[in-house]
Amino acid sequence: MNLKNRALGRHVLIDYYGCTTEIIENNGLIEQYMQEAADYAGARVVESVFHHFNPYGVSGAVIIAESHLTIHTWPEYDFASVDVFTCGDEVDPKKAADYLTIKLQAKKTELTELPRGIAKNIKQFANQRDKDKQEKMEMEKSEG
Amino acid sequence: MNLKNRALGRHVLIDYYGCTTEIIENNGLIEQYMQEAADYAGARVVESVFHHFNPYGVSGAVIIAESHLTIHTWPEYDFASVDVFTCGDEVDPKKAADYLTIKLQAKKTELTELPRGIAKNIKQFANQRDKDKQEKMEMEKSEG
Repeated sequence: MNLKNRALGRHVLIDYYGCTTEIIENNGLIEQYMQEAADYAGARVVESVFHHFNPYGVSGAVIIAESHLTIHTWPEYDFASVDVFTCGDEVDPKKAADYLTIKLQAKKTELTELPRGIAKNIKQFANQRDKDKQEKMEMEKSEG
Repeated sequence: MNLKNRALGRHVLIDYYGCTTEIIENNGLIEQYMQEAADYAGARVVESVFHHFNPYGVSGAVIIAESHLTIHTWPEYDFASVDVFTCGDEVDPKKAADYLTIKLQAKKTELTELPRGIAKNIKQFANQRDKDKQEKMEMEKSEG
Protein backbone atom coordinates (compact mmCIF):
# COMPACT_ATOMS: atom_id res chain seq x y z
CA MET A 1 0.00 0.00 0.00
CA ASN A 2 1.49 3.27 -1.19
CA LEU A 3 -0.11 6.10 0.75
CA LYS A 4 2.69 8.59 1.13
CA ASN A 5 0.45 11.64 1.46
CA ARG A 6 -1.87 12.46 4.35
CA ALA A 7 -4.86 11.96 2.07
CA LEU A 8 -5.69 10.50 -1.35
CA GLY A 9 -7.22 13.68 -2.68
CA ARG A 10 -7.62 17.43 -2.37
CA HIS A 11 -11.10 18.87 -2.73
CA VAL A 12 -11.47 22.59 -3.32
CA LEU A 13 -14.98 24.08 -3.09
CA ILE A 14 -15.32 27.58 -4.50
CA ASP A 15 -18.34 29.89 -4.38
CA TYR A 16 -18.10 32.75 -6.89
CA TYR A 17 -20.22 35.82 -6.11
CA GLY A 18 -20.89 38.81 -8.36
CA CYS A 19 -20.08 36.99 -11.62
CA THR A 20 -20.94 38.52 -14.99
CA THR A 21 -24.49 37.38 -15.83
CA GLU A 22 -23.93 36.97 -19.59
CA ILE A 23 -20.98 34.66 -18.97
CA ILE A 24 -22.58 32.32 -16.46
CA GLU A 25 -25.76 31.87 -18.48
CA ASN A 26 -23.79 30.85 -21.59
CA ASN A 27 -23.66 27.06 -21.71
CA GLY A 28 -20.97 26.87 -24.41
CA LEU A 29 -18.72 29.37 -22.65
CA ILE A 30 -19.07 27.62 -19.28
CA GLU A 31 -18.18 24.27 -20.84
CA GLN A 32 -15.16 25.82 -22.56
CA TYR A 33 -13.93 27.53 -19.37
CA MET A 34 -14.32 24.34 -17.32
CA GLN A 35 -12.28 22.33 -19.83
CA GLU A 36 -9.66 25.10 -19.92
CA ALA A 37 -9.56 25.23 -16.11
CA ALA A 38 -8.86 21.47 -16.04
CA ASP A 39 -6.09 21.89 -18.63
CA TYR A 40 -4.62 24.86 -16.80
CA ALA A 41 -4.44 22.86 -13.54
CA GLY A 42 -2.60 20.09 -15.37
CA ALA A 43 -5.47 17.55 -15.38
CA ARG A 44 -6.35 15.05 -18.11
CA VAL A 45 -10.00 15.33 -19.20
CA VAL A 46 -11.69 11.94 -19.65
CA GLU A 47 -15.38 12.77 -20.16
CA SER A 48 -17.77 15.62 -19.55
CA VAL A 49 -21.45 16.40 -19.39
CA PHE A 50 -23.20 19.79 -19.38
CA HIS A 51 -26.85 20.68 -19.08
CA HIS A 52 -28.51 24.03 -19.75
CA PHE A 53 -31.58 24.59 -17.60
CA ASN A 54 -34.70 26.42 -18.76
CA PRO A 55 -34.97 29.43 -18.34
CA TYR A 56 -31.37 29.79 -17.15
CA GLY A 57 -28.49 28.13 -15.35
CA VAL A 58 -25.83 25.66 -16.35
CA SER A 59 -24.81 22.46 -14.54
CA GLY A 60 -21.85 20.43 -15.62
CA ALA A 61 -19.25 17.87 -14.64
CA VAL A 62 -15.83 17.18 -16.09
CA ILE A 63 -14.41 13.78 -15.19
CA ILE A 64 -10.62 13.96 -15.14
CA ALA A 65 -8.14 11.11 -14.71
CA GLU A 66 -7.39 12.74 -11.33
CA SER A 67 -11.11 12.96 -10.17
CA HIS A 68 -13.50 15.80 -11.21
CA LEU A 69 -14.61 19.37 -11.67
CA THR A 70 -18.26 20.44 -11.38
CA ILE A 71 -20.11 23.72 -11.81
CA HIS A 72 -23.60 25.10 -11.19
CA THR A 73 -24.53 28.62 -12.18
CA TRP A 74 -27.40 30.86 -11.04
CA PRO A 75 -27.38 33.78 -13.50
CA GLU A 76 -30.33 35.34 -11.64
CA TYR A 77 -28.03 35.71 -8.61
CA ASP A 78 -24.74 36.29 -10.49
CA PHE A 79 -23.56 33.23 -8.58
CA ALA A 80 -21.64 30.08 -9.50
CA SER A 81 -20.55 27.14 -7.35
CA VAL A 82 -17.53 25.09 -8.44
CA ASP A 83 -15.82 21.97 -7.11
CA VAL A 84 -12.36 20.78 -8.05
CA PHE A 85 -11.41 17.37 -6.64
CA THR A 86 -7.96 16.05 -7.56
CA CYS A 87 -5.81 13.14 -6.49
CA GLY A 88 -2.05 12.77 -6.82
CA ASP A 89 0.59 15.47 -6.68
CA GLU A 90 0.63 16.61 -10.27
CA VAL A 91 -2.59 18.59 -10.46
CA ASP A 92 -3.19 21.73 -8.41
CA PRO A 93 -6.95 22.28 -7.87
CA LYS A 94 -6.32 25.90 -6.81
CA LYS A 95 -5.00 26.72 -10.26
CA ALA A 96 -8.37 25.72 -11.73
CA ALA A 97 -10.08 27.88 -9.10
CA ASP A 98 -7.93 30.90 -9.95
CA TYR A 99 -8.53 30.44 -13.66
CA LEU A 100 -12.31 30.48 -13.14
CA THR A 101 -12.20 33.54 -10.84
CA ILE A 102 -10.84 35.47 -13.83
CA LYS A 103 -13.07 33.89 -16.49
CA LEU A 104 -16.34 34.22 -14.54
CA GLN A 105 -15.31 37.78 -13.54
CA ALA A 106 -16.22 37.02 -9.94
CA LYS A 107 -16.12 39.95 -7.51
CA LYS A 108 -15.87 37.73 -4.45
CA THR A 109 -14.49 34.19 -4.16
CA GLU A 110 -14.95 31.91 -1.15
CA LEU A 111 -12.66 28.89 -1.20
CA THR A 112 -12.66 25.90 1.16
CA GLU A 113 -10.18 23.04 0.89
CA LEU A 114 -10.80 19.60 2.39
CA PRO A 115 -8.66 16.46 2.30
CA ARG A 116 -10.46 13.37 0.94
CA GLY A 117 -9.57 9.78 1.78
CA ILE A 118 -7.46 10.10 4.93
CA ALA A 119 -4.47 7.71 4.71
CA LYS A 120 -4.61 6.62 8.35
CA ASN A 121 -8.27 5.59 8.03
CA ILE A 122 -7.58 3.67 4.83
CA LYS A 123 -4.68 1.86 6.49
CA GLN A 124 -6.77 1.04 9.55
CA PHE A 125 -9.40 -0.74 7.46
CA ALA A 126 -6.82 -2.47 5.29
CA ASN A 127 -5.15 -3.83 8.46
CA GLN A 128 -8.53 -4.94 9.79
CA ARG A 129 -9.29 -6.73 6.51
CA ASP A 130 -5.91 -8.53 6.55
CA LYS A 131 -6.50 -9.56 10.17
CA ASP A 132 -10.00 -10.87 9.33
CA LYS A 133 -8.60 -12.83 6.39
CA GLN A 134 -5.86 -14.36 8.51
CA GLU A 135 -8.29 -15.32 11.29
CA LYS A 136 -10.59 -16.94 8.72
CA MET A 137 -7.69 -18.92 7.26
CA GLU A 138 -6.57 -20.06 10.72
CA MET A 139 -10.09 -21.09 11.60
CA GLU A 140 -10.42 -23.08 8.37
CA LYS A 141 -7.04 -24.74 9.04
CA SER A 142 -8.00 -25.76 12.59
CA GLU A 143 -11.39 -27.02 11.36
CA GLY A 144 -9.75 -29.02 8.57
CA MET B 1 -35.07 38.02 -5.26
CA ASN B 2 -36.37 35.02 -3.34
CA LEU B 3 -33.66 33.80 -0.98
CA LYS B 4 -35.60 32.57 2.01
CA ASN B 5 -32.97 30.06 3.15
CA ARG B 6 -29.55 30.84 4.59
CA ALA B 7 -27.92 29.34 1.49
CA LEU B 8 -28.87 28.22 -2.02
CA GLY B 9 -27.54 24.71 -1.59
CA ARG B 10 -26.47 21.95 0.76
CA HIS B 11 -23.29 20.07 -0.07
CA VAL B 12 -22.63 16.79 1.67
CA LEU B 13 -19.17 15.22 1.25
CA ILE B 14 -18.92 11.59 2.33
CA ASP B 15 -15.81 9.41 2.56
CA TYR B 16 -16.63 5.69 2.76
CA TYR B 17 -13.93 3.47 4.30
CA GLY B 18 -13.81 -0.31 4.36
CA CYS B 19 -16.20 -0.80 1.43
CA THR B 20 -16.62 -4.19 -0.25
CA THR B 21 -13.99 -4.38 -3.01
CA GLU B 22 -16.16 -6.30 -5.52
CA ILE B 23 -18.89 -3.67 -5.29
CA ILE B 24 -16.77 -0.58 -5.73
CA GLU B 25 -14.85 -1.98 -8.70
CA ASN B 26 -18.09 -2.80 -10.55
CA ASN B 27 -18.85 0.08 -12.94
CA GLY B 28 -22.43 -1.02 -13.69
CA LEU B 29 -23.29 -1.50 -10.02
CA ILE B 30 -21.84 1.86 -9.02
CA GLU B 31 -23.80 3.63 -11.75
CA GLN B 32 -26.98 1.85 -10.64
CA TYR B 33 -26.47 2.69 -6.95
CA MET B 34 -25.76 6.34 -7.73
CA GLN B 35 -28.95 6.67 -9.77
CA GLU B 36 -30.89 4.89 -7.02
CA ALA B 37 -29.34 7.16 -4.36
CA ALA B 38 -30.52 10.20 -6.33
CA ASP B 39 -34.02 8.73 -6.61
CA TYR B 40 -34.10 7.80 -2.94
CA ALA B 41 -33.17 11.37 -1.95
CA GLY B 42 -36.04 12.68 -4.10
CA ALA B 43 -33.89 14.17 -6.87
CA ARG B 44 -34.66 14.28 -10.60
CA VAL B 45 -31.82 12.81 -12.69
CA VAL B 46 -31.02 14.87 -15.80
CA GLU B 47 -27.81 13.34 -17.20
CA SER B 48 -24.98 11.14 -16.04
CA VAL B 49 -21.51 10.06 -17.03
CA PHE B 50 -19.42 7.18 -15.67
CA HIS B 51 -15.89 6.10 -16.47
CA HIS B 52 -14.15 2.85 -15.54
CA PHE B 53 -10.41 3.24 -15.08
CA ASN B 54 -7.83 0.63 -16.03
CA PRO B 55 -6.93 -1.46 -14.02
CA TYR B 56 -9.61 -0.43 -11.48
CA GLY B 57 -11.68 2.40 -10.09
CA VAL B 58 -14.86 4.11 -11.15
CA SER B 59 -15.51 7.85 -11.50
CA GLY B 60 -18.92 9.22 -12.21
CA ALA B 61 -21.22 12.20 -12.04
CA VAL B 62 -25.00 12.38 -11.98
CA ILE B 63 -26.43 15.78 -12.87
CA ILE B 64 -29.76 16.27 -11.12
CA ALA B 65 -32.24 19.14 -11.55
CA GLU B 66 -31.21 20.08 -7.98
CA SER B 67 -27.38 20.03 -8.65
CA HIS B 68 -25.24 16.84 -8.61
CA LEU B 69 -23.87 13.62 -7.18
CA THR B 70 -20.32 12.40 -7.87
CA ILE B 71 -18.35 9.31 -6.91
CA HIS B 72 -14.76 8.09 -7.13
CA THR B 73 -13.79 4.61 -6.01
CA TRP B 74 -10.40 3.12 -5.09
CA PRO B 75 -11.01 -0.65 -4.90
CA GLU B 76 -7.34 -1.16 -3.97
CA TYR B 77 -8.05 0.79 -0.76
CA ASP B 78 -11.69 -0.30 -0.24
CA PHE B 79 -12.40 3.42 -0.37
CA ALA B 80 -15.00 5.59 -2.10
CA SER B 81 -15.53 9.34 -2.04
CA VAL B 82 -19.00 10.74 -2.74
CA ASP B 83 -20.45 14.24 -3.06
CA VAL B 84 -24.12 15.11 -2.95
CA PHE B 85 -24.91 18.76 -3.71
CA THR B 86 -28.59 19.76 -3.68
CA CYS B 87 -30.52 23.01 -3.86
CA GLY B 88 -34.06 23.68 -2.72
CA ASP B 89 -35.94 22.10 0.16
CA GLU B 90 -37.31 19.01 -1.51
CA VAL B 91 -34.20 16.85 -1.76
CA ASP B 92 -32.31 15.62 1.28
CA PRO B 93 -28.64 14.94 0.39
CA LYS B 94 -28.18 12.90 3.60
CA LYS B 95 -30.69 10.33 2.37
CA ALA B 96 -28.46 9.67 -0.65
CA ALA B 97 -25.48 9.37 1.71
CA ASP B 98 -27.29 6.84 3.92
CA TYR B 99 -28.39 4.80 0.91
CA LEU B 100 -24.80 4.51 -0.31
CA THR B 101 -23.45 3.58 3.15
CA ILE B 102 -25.62 0.48 2.93
CA LYS B 103 -25.01 -0.31 -0.75
CA LEU B 104 -21.21 0.12 -0.64
CA GLN B 105 -21.16 -1.84 2.65
CA ALA B 106 -18.94 0.82 4.20
CA LYS B 107 -17.53 0.10 7.65
CA LYS B 108 -16.81 3.74 8.41
CA THR B 109 -18.46 6.86 7.01
CA GLU B 110 -17.14 10.39 7.40
CA LEU B 111 -19.67 13.05 6.46
CA THR B 112 -19.15 16.81 6.18
CA GLU B 113 -21.92 19.25 5.29
CA LEU B 114 -21.27 22.71 3.90
CA PRO B 115 -23.72 25.42 2.82
CA ARG B 116 -23.17 26.68 -0.75
CA GLY B 117 -24.18 30.11 -2.03
CA ILE B 118 -24.70 32.14 1.15
CA ALA B 119 -27.82 34.32 0.77
CA LYS B 120 -26.32 37.40 2.45
CA ASN B 121 -23.35 37.41 0.06
CA ILE B 122 -25.63 37.03 -2.96
CA LYS B 123 -27.81 39.91 -1.75
CA GLN B 124 -24.77 42.09 -1.11
CA PHE B 125 -23.58 41.76 -4.72
CA ALA B 126 -27.09 42.18 -6.12
CA ASN B 127 -27.42 45.45 -4.15
CA GLN B 128 -24.02 46.59 -5.42
CA ARG B 129 -25.05 45.85 -9.00
CA ASP B 130 -28.32 47.79 -8.62
CA LYS B 131 -26.39 50.72 -7.12
CA ASP B 132 -23.87 50.68 -9.98
CA LYS B 133 -26.70 50.63 -12.52
CA GLN B 134 -28.47 53.53 -10.84
CA GLU B 135 -25.27 55.60 -10.64
CA LYS B 136 -24.62 54.96 -14.33
CA MET B 137 -28.15 56.05 -15.24
CA GLU B 138 -27.86 59.21 -13.15
CA MET B 139 -24.50 60.02 -14.73
CA GLU B 140 -25.94 59.56 -18.21
CA LYS B 141 -28.90 61.78 -17.30
CA SER B 142 -26.67 64.58 -16.00
CA GLU B 143 -24.42 64.31 -19.08
CA GLY B 144 -27.40 64.37 -21.43
